[in-house]
Amino acid sequence: MALIGCGLMGGSFALAAKRAGLVKRIVGYSKSPSTTSRARQMGVIDEEASSALQAVSGADLVLLAVPVASTESTLANIKHLINPDTLVMDVGSTKMDVVASARRALRDRFGCFVPAHPITGKEVFGVDHADVNLYRDAQVVLTPTELTKVAQLRQAEAIWKAIGSHVTSMAPEQHDAALAASSHAPHLVAMAYMNSLLSQDGAHRMLSLAGPGFRDFTRIAAAEPQMWRDIFLANRSEILKQIQSLQHMLGSYEAALLSDDQPALEHLLREASSTRAQWKQGKLYTPESLSKHKTTA
Amino acid sequence: MALIGCGLMGGSFALAAKRAGLVKRIVGYSKSPSTTSRARQMGVIDEEASSALQAVSGADLVLLAVPVASTESTLANIKHLINPDTLVMDVGSTKMDVVASARRALRDRFGCFVPAHPITGKEVFGVDHADVNLYRDAQVVLTPTELTKVAQLRQAEAIWKAIGSHVTSMAPEQHDAALAASSHAPHLVAMAYMNSLLSQDGAHRMLSLAGPGFRDFTRIAAAEPQMWRDIFLANRSEILKQIQSLQHMLGSYEAALLSDDQPALEHLLREASSTRAQWKQGKLYTPESLSKHKTTA
Repeated sequence: MALIGCGLMGGSFALAAKRAGLVKRIVGYSKSPSTTSRARQMGVIDEEASSALQAVSGADLVLLAVPVASTESTLANIKHLINPDTLVMDVGSTKMDVVASARRALRDRFGCFVPAHPITGKEVFGVDHADVNLYRDAQVVLTPTELTKVAQLRQAEAIWKAIGSHVTSMAPEQHDAALAASSHAPHLVAMAYMNSLLSQDGAHRMLSLAGPGFRDFTRIAAAEPQMWRDIFLANRSEILKQIQSLQHMLGSYEAALLSDDQPALEHLLREASSTRAQWKQGKLYTPESLSKHKTTA
Repeated sequence: MALIGCGLMGGSFALAAKRAGLVKRIVGYSKSPSTTSRARQMGVIDEEASSALQAVSGADLVLLAVPVASTESTLANIKHLINPDTLVMDVGSTKMDVVASARRALRDRFGCFVPAHPITGKEVFGVDHADVNLYRDAQVVLTPTELTKVAQLRQAEAIWKAIGSHVTSMAPEQHDAALAASSHAPHLVAMAYMNSLLSQDGAHRMLSLAGPGFRDFTRIAAAEPQMWRDIFLANRSEILKQIQSLQHMLGSYEAALLSDDQPALEHLLREASSTRAQWKQGKLYTPESLSKHKTTA
């Protein structure tokens, strides 16, 4: 296996793939030599490569775990060492741009590429936080195209299942629209909320009185700035739709508050609260309900 | 001790006060007789009262744990059983309205009232979720006025400290402005975000692909609708300011996305991410840093 990008996501995948006995030997490459070196010291990879191309040499499986904006250049670098049986996957949070990049970079080898998005992560980043259980019970969305080879797709499904993930497939555009709503917008809003606090007089007191609600609401605001800059730009149109929808809803709350419209306010709050409670109980197909389904089947 | 309102907050206080040996006997009252009865069955209270007035009879300490909008009517009901040495506290999330209500309801006994806001909670509610450790390491803000008696204030501080909380004091208006920013706005935004999702085509798919980021960002959206309706209305002007500030910041993100302004976007994200990371490390006076300070002092 070649691991290109030995950060949190890539490192955790390497650890899980090893534990599941899926790979014999992992050759890793990161842009920063110190990261590659640290990954080997930690046992995340077996061997350090000095280039992405070197890492891919002789690999059956290539995992690309780099910022989505680096997908095209990285794949173009390794293209001529990808043979028809190689499986290439990514772990990017956006899929339309990744698919387009891969199509341009891989050309006649594009069928070997299975776009993948494991919906998991941490608010900390870097190989030091690599976690063998990061993908356990996580949902993984595969977004194959009409050119994706079935053999590679089946292999990809088997690999993610073997490390404990729940696999679903959908079109890249469906993925990007849904993830803009369920993940990208929350990240942007949590971050904008932190900026909003900081822009105000009394920010220090506000932060000093922050409790567990603040802690959880803003956990994702600590995410890696460059990675999220790329995700926001890559999925810009869907994210803008989500921000507009939220702003419209905030306007409804403002109107209810300004007019002291208690029934309207309570109606909104009841809808929000009961939906979140149902989601938690797995009534809206959470990973937990999928997992339950699986074990009883 | 009289406990008026045997829900999550009141029930948890009762359990903690008992464990700390602060109270001999707790008489409880809730608007719903089944809640009072359940509280007694669980050992949260020792005796059920059939009215707030009956609960207060003979009590040295009265804890009011009712929605903030019920403060005035409840205090008016019990006023003539409050003697000059009684300590009366609330646990409400807003303080200016509570102070005004208490002043009107208690009149010459207003000095016995120490307004308190323990900054803690859960996204579930009701006495069944009462937790003896809910207040441990939580910040508790007291907002005494110029009429509050020093004896009661000192006693209140000692009680909260005895159950493991960190006590700070400030003016009610400072509290409400800071909490609008650090707690009320996040609740409103998390709830508006849930409403926004639900208002869209494809809401089901969006929710089915929600991961750990969504889970934490929306945890507080499951909070009790009526309680939060009251808090939002009670602290309306400060909350509206926060929503406007957030909307302004969302506008900055929109502008950066629309103009593909990568440096501006990255600047915002870096500021948000580093502030959240610093807060977590206790560099911005979190309860953890207060706690550390205390134990080394």
